[in-house]
Amino acid sequence: MGSLLTDIPSTLPTEIFQDLVKTDSIRIERIISKGHSTPDSDWYDQTENEWVLVVKGEAKILFEKGMKEQHLKEGDYVNIPAHQRHKVSWTHPAEETIWLAVFYS
Amino acid sequence: MGSLLTDIPSTLPTEIFQDLVKTDSIRIERIISKGHSTPDSDWYDQTENEWVLVVKGEAKILFEKGMKEQHLKEGDYVNIPAHQRHKVSWTHPAEETIWLAVFYS
Repeated sequence: MGSLLTDIPSTLPTEIFQDLVKTDSIRIERIISKGHSTPDSDWYDQTENEWVLVVKGEAKILFEKGMKEQHLKEGDYVNIPAHQRHKVSWTHPAEETIWLAVFYS
Repeated sequence: MGSLLTDIPSTLPTEIFQDLVKTDSIRIERIISKGHSTPDSDWYDQTENEWVLVVKGEAKILFEKGMKEQHLKEGDYVNIPAHQRHKVSWTHPAEETIWLAVFYS
């Protein structure tokens, strides 16, 4: 039992990643961003599929190929297959963006 | 890509259950309730674990043993182990409650 909307640090020098559930087959994670983005030269290239939801705030995700940049607002989700290279190109600088990510194989 | 907050029917004679992701090991589901609850005589007794989040709205979950009734509001989640008998004892009658449920083994 818990809340995704509480225990938000007042400053966020780096993004925060918190496991909520972790088993052999699945991981549910809360991520908190505020103006953070993936460095320009980097791509996430993950061995697991990721279903990710913006619970609060706003963000943009860029895919290396096949899809244009997605602007995600509250309630928006995207399913990212394993090894689909992507990055977070922008998160709102003035408010926290709270993500819920479900990693699964 | 989609939104949990759109495509809400204007009337909800019954709860709506929609699979967003479905694999052998995991199922991610959106549920929409409005005043619905589990019939008094029934309990959910599931073979899978369920992590469930109230994205919007308000609900109460009752457990047969071990935990008092939980009143869930926006952003609140609860992790329900397989075979922990539970029911939805109340959902807000005047607004939609949107749930995100992750079933995993």
